[in-house]
Amino acid sequence: MHAYRSHTCAELNKSNVGDNVRLSGWVHRVRDHGGLLFIDLRDHFGITQVMADPDSPVFAEIEKVRSEWCIRIDGNVMARDESLINPKIPTGEVEVFIRDIEVLGHADELPLMVFGDQEYPEETRLKYRYLDLRREKLQNNMKLRSDVVASMRKRMWDKGFREFQTPIITSSSPEGARDFLIPSRLHPGKFYALPQAPQQFKQLIMVSGYDKYFQIAPCFRDEDPRADRSPTDFYQLDMEMSFVTQQDVFDTIQPVIQGVFEEFGEGRKVDTEWEQISYKDAALWYGTDKPDLRNPIKMQIVSEHFRGSGFAIFAKLLEQEGTEIRAIPAPGGGSRKFCDRMNAFAQKEGLPGMGYIFWRDQGNGMEAAGPLAKNIGPERTEAIRQQLGLEVGDAAFFLAGKPKAFEAVAGRARDEIGRELKLIDEDRFAFAWIVDFPIYERDEETGKVDFEHNPFSMPQGGMEALEGDPLEVLGYQYDLSCNGYELVSGAIRNHKPEIMFKAFEIAGYGRDEVEKRFGGMVNAFKYGAPPHGGCAAGIDRIVMLLANEANIREVIMFPMNQRAEDLMMGAPNEPMNEQLRELHLRVIPQE
Amino acid sequence: MHAYRSHTCAELNKSNVGDNVRLSGWVHRVRDHGGLLFIDLRDHFGITQVMADPDSPVFAEIEKVRSEWCIRIDGNVMARDESLINPKIPTGEVEVFIRDIEVLGHADELPLMVFGDQEYPEETRLKYRYLDLRREKLQNNMKLRSDVVASMRKRMWDKGFREFQTPIITSSSPEGARDFLIPSRLHPGKFYALPQAPQQFKQLIMVSGYDKYFQIAPCFRDEDPRADRSPTDFYQLDMEMSFVTQQDVFDTIQPVIQGVFEEFGEGRKVDTEWEQISYKDAALWYGTDKPDLRNPIKMQIVSEHFRGSGFAIFAKLLEQEGTEIRAIPAPGGGSRKFCDRMNAFAQKEGLPGMGYIFWRDQGNGMEAAGPLAKNIGPERTEAIRQQLGLEVGDAAFFLAGKPKAFEAVAGRARDEIGRELKLIDEDRFAFAWIVDFPIYERDEETGKVDFEHNPFSMPQGGMEALEGDPLEVLGYQYDLSCNGYELVSGAIRNHKPEIMFKAFEIAGYGRDEVEKRFGGMVNAFKYGAPPHGGCAAGIDRIVMLLANEANIREVIMFPMNQRAEDLMMGAPNEPMNEQLRELHLRVIPQE
Repeated sequence: MHAYRSHTCAELNKSNVGDNVRLSGWVHRVRDHGGLLFIDLRDHFGITQVMADPDSPVFAEIEKVRSEWCIRIDGNVMARDESLINPKIPTGEVEVFIRDIEVLGHADELPLMVFGDQEYPEETRLKYRYLDLRREKLQNNMKLRSDVVASMRKRMWDKGFREFQTPIITSSSPEGARDFLIPSRLHPGKFYALPQAPQQFKQLIMVSGYDKYFQIAPCFRDEDPRADRSPTDFYQLDMEMSFVTQQDVFDTIQPVIQGVFEEFGEGRKVDTEWEQISYKDAALWYGTDKPDLRNPIKMQIVSEHFRGSGFAIFAKLLEQEGTEIRAIPAPGGGSRKFCDRMNAFAQKEGLPGMGYIFWRDQGNGMEAAGPLAKNIGPERTEAIRQQLGLEVGDAAFFLAGKPKAFEAVAGRARDEIGRELKLIDEDRFAFAWIVDFPIYERDEETGKVDFEHNPFSMPQGGMEALEGDPLEVLGYQYDLSCNGYELVSGAIRNHKPEIMFKAFEIAGYGRDEVEKRFGGMVNAFKYGAPPHGGCAAGIDRIVMLLANEANIREVIMFPMNQRAEDLMMGAPNEPMNEQLRELHLRVIPQE
Repeated sequence: MHAYRSHTCAELNKSNVGDNVRLSGWVHRVRDHGGLLFIDLRDHFGITQVMADPDSPVFAEIEKVRSEWCIRIDGNVMARDESLINPKIPTGEVEVFIRDIEVLGHADELPLMVFGDQEYPEETRLKYRYLDLRREKLQNNMKLRSDVVASMRKRMWDKGFREFQTPIITSSSPEGARDFLIPSRLHPGKFYALPQAPQQFKQLIMVSGYDKYFQIAPCFRDEDPRADRSPTDFYQLDMEMSFVTQQDVFDTIQPVIQGVFEEFGEGRKVDTEWEQISYKDAALWYGTDKPDLRNPIKMQIVSEHFRGSGFAIFAKLLEQEGTEIRAIPAPGGGSRKFCDRMNAFAQKEGLPGMGYIFWRDQGNGMEAAGPLAKNIGPERTEAIRQQLGLEVGDAAFFLAGKPKAFEAVAGRARDEIGRELKLIDEDRFAFAWIVDFPIYERDEETGKVDFEHNPFSMPQGGMEALEGDPLEVLGYQYDLSCNGYELVSGAIRNHKPEIMFKAFEIAGYGRDEVEKRFGGMVNAFKYGAPPHGGCAAGIDRIVMLLANEANIREVIMFPMNQRAEDLMMGAPNEPMNEQLRELHLRVIPQE
């Protein structure tokens, strides 16, 4: 017989009754029924009930075992009494009478129980991650993560993509976030950097003629932590293709993402028609470029109804250039209590508040209530109601000013209204491509034009477009939004050196600067670069959505804590003096 | 029609004749046949001949294109004249008459030609890697690498393994090589390290109850460069299993490795019976723990034949303790010229030389020649011949002393003899497991006992074995040798804290030291660790063998040079002062 097991803990059933078997696993739970000891023996695959009575030759040893000891037992499979059958587990019809036991690994007193639902502070959970990982939730989350990644790979291979590994120890490539640096021992004073993304390398792979690339790629950013972001590294399904348009990229990646959500969504509805929404429309309708489309609310411009109206604040505001009034329709939100709560929400978010109108039936027909309605009068109120398609029992909220100033709050108010009114179908994954991002934006403070997003995207209209107003230039650049998260981001790249230099020039970067910062890639473009584009999908976020988790640490095997520390391994820690000497570095003591 | 292509450059054949097609790719070669221009248009998939004559509306533009420009052409598929058919390529029966052309990417004058076989200095090749990668050899090597890795994954999945990603930014874990360090910004003065291998994490995954783990894992060692080793990072197929014996690991990984060699070996013979050779026997027979078993030569101990013989040097030497005479049989090496050459080889390798005997037929029967034969006389000479199973035309070489002092050279001499005598079947992959490694060795200089290899292996015989002579303790530790390379290395792990502390104690490491250096893992073992073991296979080396390359840089997409520099991206480079300030670091100027 095998040294450790003849079966896993999920395999035995009625057909094994009478068999002599060997099982190994962890003591999930011990129950003492008056001299009769029952142990739920757990391994990766399942649980089998094993038991002993004082007649067992090893009863004394079995009495000693405690939760989470790792043991090996030999015994006979027996059918359970009809009344004791557990239909919830595959092995529920049998139990094993223990004839021999070997303790494979003792356990000290547990800082965290594997059995049961007790909650523990995050610090405990991270320090004893190996115990937390034995618990059902994390055990399943990691299996899910692994299966999702495997499925992505198979789907990419099926589409003719090859996976290529790009360097992890490389040069600094400023992409917005902070680099992690690695001092070079052979070149004192010089540093490598961990890649923030394989962006430049994947473009170089296209220049090298590979046509289709993907990688489950680790990305490294020295960022201040957030719930949906790891403070050190995260993983992307990174892909790039040559000789493609934006639509080709969409047609390639949609079946992959959609397929993964269908495969692992456990029956939740997965949208199959992915709308393309311009960045501009997304801002107007949803107040964000990552809208939650499960929420049916769409904002609208209602400026005209307030222009010259009796509501002086809005009427006056509209006289300033660049101002607008936007409405958030709230179907079912037609009560003063609700409207006041949302108004308070807006105030908490830093706005002076949201005006509102709600429509009620006081027995004598529809009535528009709220201070705004009174001020602008019934005709305008009715026109607003008609534009927004609202009825009795509904409400509308109004935000006024320069859109940039209130858009983000409007977006959050829309989320809040949707949540409060239960307009959101929790069991749905709603996708949309956000397209036509502007290439540039003007820094409000300095007045300078800078890249809005990514300096590597091809401007729509190419060189010609760059000759006009830079703030009007749109890029072949896109994000995929799902349930309020940005899941994918990508672009058709700017592969022509002259257009790239021009694009950088507009943002104030000279040729030398570009050569210095992105020389590896820009030089390559001088030797016959193909048109290419692609995208990167955030794996941690996809798994978070599928696992219904709000914190990224629940879907990473060994995550850092919020302070970017690994409490289990004790990282970071102090280096040995010799290591610093070899690297020609000195730590500057802090004041 | 699609913006860039209706077909790839490998798709068109006779059935397309008359079609209007669009192709994109690189100008591989231009030939001017008296006004008739032929272009081999190349993409990732193949080559299609496209052509134009002065009647083409875009002839003037086509005349301008140069090698490696990336172009898009529209044209009509035409059958080639019978006499011009190229049976070597799938598109060889057709050509495309160009009606329209668009230059997608110009190319400056090329520092490295893609077409043709010209050789370039490595510096040029690395700096313009994207051009070198377009060449057939590298293009194919990278495809091979990608396909090998994909095949490994599929094979591991099929065996019920899940891939889990382990942290890349983690703590220093001294495993023999030097760590790359990453200064922490949030914790000034503290550093993370890149993992030399996911060893501790994969063991923690077992303690977490996952049963079967694998990962295509990047490993990082700050090592001085070598031809078969990357100076920064390399990849392993890393795996670990719970509740297994050494034989279970072998039975699991052999089909994976063997399968990959069969799949990608292009008909080369792949051994299916993998012998298990003890470390001790391997040293004796082959002078190395990574023998090339394609070479049939097996060394033998022949001390007895020299003890008290007329060859005083050997006879005297044998009076010292721990000395031995070993013979390298050389079938077919029976000429003075060859024997002298091998003797010179040994001298070049730092030995005083190798004595030899060779057997020849001078017309009057077999004669043993060489100085040794004369000194020890015909009887002893004949006994040696019989022990070694040699015949006329063969030779034997002799090495004497303490085995440790000459074993490595003996191993290289065996290689050299095998190569010179063409005893090696170049079209074969010969595998053997090297097992029973000693856990400890004695440092010749200090006399101290230290770990021979890996402190994490379970000693054969467990705690009991550690109570005896440490130098006699063998580990459940193994390597897979293939054609002279160590392809796989692994062990059944020491999962019991008390045995681990004892093992470290013997090597002079106190409990505190162990807790400090390996605390993450050792602590975990206190909470019910399962017996487990596994191995890691070197992916770069496997691909090197399959691609028949001698240098690891030929199988890595973007490798560092020998000085650990990325000439294309300019890594490492000098950090910005602000970066150093944020990290609280100062570079110490060099004298």
